[in-house]
Amino acid sequence: MKFDVLTLFPDMINQACSHSIIARGIESGLICVNAINPRDYTKDKHKKVDDTPYGGGAGMVLMCQPYFDCFDSIDKDENTEIILLSPQGETFNQNMSVELSQKKHIVLICGHYEGFDERIKLYTKAREVSIGDFVLTGGELPAMCIIDSVSRNIDGFLGKIDSAHFDSFSDGLLEYPQYTKPREYCGYQVPEVLLNGNHSEIAKWRRKQQLIATYKKRRDLFEDFVKNCKDKQDLKLLNEVISELK
Amino acid sequence: MKFDVLTLFPDMINQACSHSIIARGIESGLICVNAINPRDYTKDKHKKVDDTPYGGGAGMVLMCQPYFDCFDSIDKDENTEIILLSPQGETFNQNMSVELSQKKHIVLICGHYEGFDERIKLYTKAREVSIGDFVLTGGELPAMCIIDSVSRNIDGFLGKIDSAHFDSFSDGLLEYPQYTKPREYCGYQVPEVLLNGNHSEIAKWRRKQQLIATYKKRRDLFEDFVKNCKDKQDLKLLNEVISELK
Repeated sequence: MKFDVLTLFPDMINQACSHSIIARGIESGLICVNAINPRDYTKDKHKKVDDTPYGGGAGMVLMCQPYFDCFDSIDKDENTEIILLSPQGETFNQNMSVELSQKKHIVLICGHYEGFDERIKLYTKAREVSIGDFVLTGGELPAMCIIDSVSRNIDGFLGKIDSAHFDSFSDGLLEYPQYTKPREYCGYQVPEVLLNGNHSEIAKWRRKQQLIATYKKRRDLFEDFVKNCKDKQDLKLLNEVISELK
Repeated sequence: MKFDVLTLFPDMINQACSHSIIARGIESGLICVNAINPRDYTKDKHKKVDDTPYGGGAGMVLMCQPYFDCFDSIDKDENTEIILLSPQGETFNQNMSVELSQKKHIVLICGHYEGFDERIKLYTKAREVSIGDFVLTGGELPAMCIIDSVSRNIDGFLGKIDSAHFDSFSDGLLEYPQYTKPREYCGYQVPEVLLNGNHSEIAKWRRKQQLIATYKKRRDLFEDFVKNCKDKQDLKLLNEVISELK
């Protein structure tokens, strides 16, 4: 999987890619992240990439020419997905992440300052994507979130692929609580059920904890889960949880 | 505003803070970002910070001792907000960002790998916050998103504070399209209204574009806006937009 990132801050992308699992993914050749700076494509002698908005207002707007030319410099084919990071976009989530992990090539166009000249969106025919309903200085952090999240879904990227499947959201529920050694620390105990080695009891307890956590913390996800739940054991646990919590 | 970030990857935080507006905010003394590594607090001779989960399963779980001790090393008072980044948390948004910008001190606890021993959440009494419904390798990118977004709301942080108020979400609508020079590029034109210098017409056009963009791209935000809209001019524009788009 190749990621091309159009950004005025390529060092920010390169540095963020030099740590932890993303760095290992790059080393192993499973992913490749290439940061390209539209400033290198400007025809202005001062290397200007932005100008004041038509119609007035505060802030600066990113200009067509450097972004058009930078975008044109990238080889693309029918397996390329073009994403423009913008607060106006559809909200990124785990489903989109899994969908994107099927692609071979993703172009991520990062804004900065007040935003893009609208014609950049039209020209690139990009899919506008937002990571959430909050405003950031640029698209670099969202681009990194997408690279990290999508890469995790690529076969072989995580040491044990199982890890990805047990993460939050992969089954529509939040995760169950985790505990590690020691059994008791500063007065806090590990729940007894996790220590007795009874695997079916542990699985049942964990599933119930997932339902409880989702009910308490994310009623929206819980209601979606209830609507679509067909598994007999889940339905039984659901009834238990609902009657206990009501 | 002081941010303390508990992270196993302090370089990732320090590097991300060395660019653009965040770097300027740190230089000017308006914000301060301090990355602290729980690994420096481990009492294990191999500097171990994680172990296998009780009850079995893939992946590693972050241990109590290094996180408890690292957390205890931070001076806190009634103006401190403690946030633990977790996919199980409440979803970060622009309202939470504005709320957090009123604090003097924010502690951000980043996980990595499979997650925290549940007792770390209990001990720190942290507010669990998620930036969205997708899984990431660690809490570092979400922590950076929160630092960036919250800092933008601090008075004096942006050159012209107006810029923050015209951003997306600050009035519950998406932004209007922006254009900058030239008037025509590769066949793409700037809308005539932005070029005629009639400020009230421009303001009306922009407001209408905000309503149209929100209607088309984020029906959820649009419906919330309609429910709460009391402004006469907005109501008039709303009727125009709804009848045109239906």
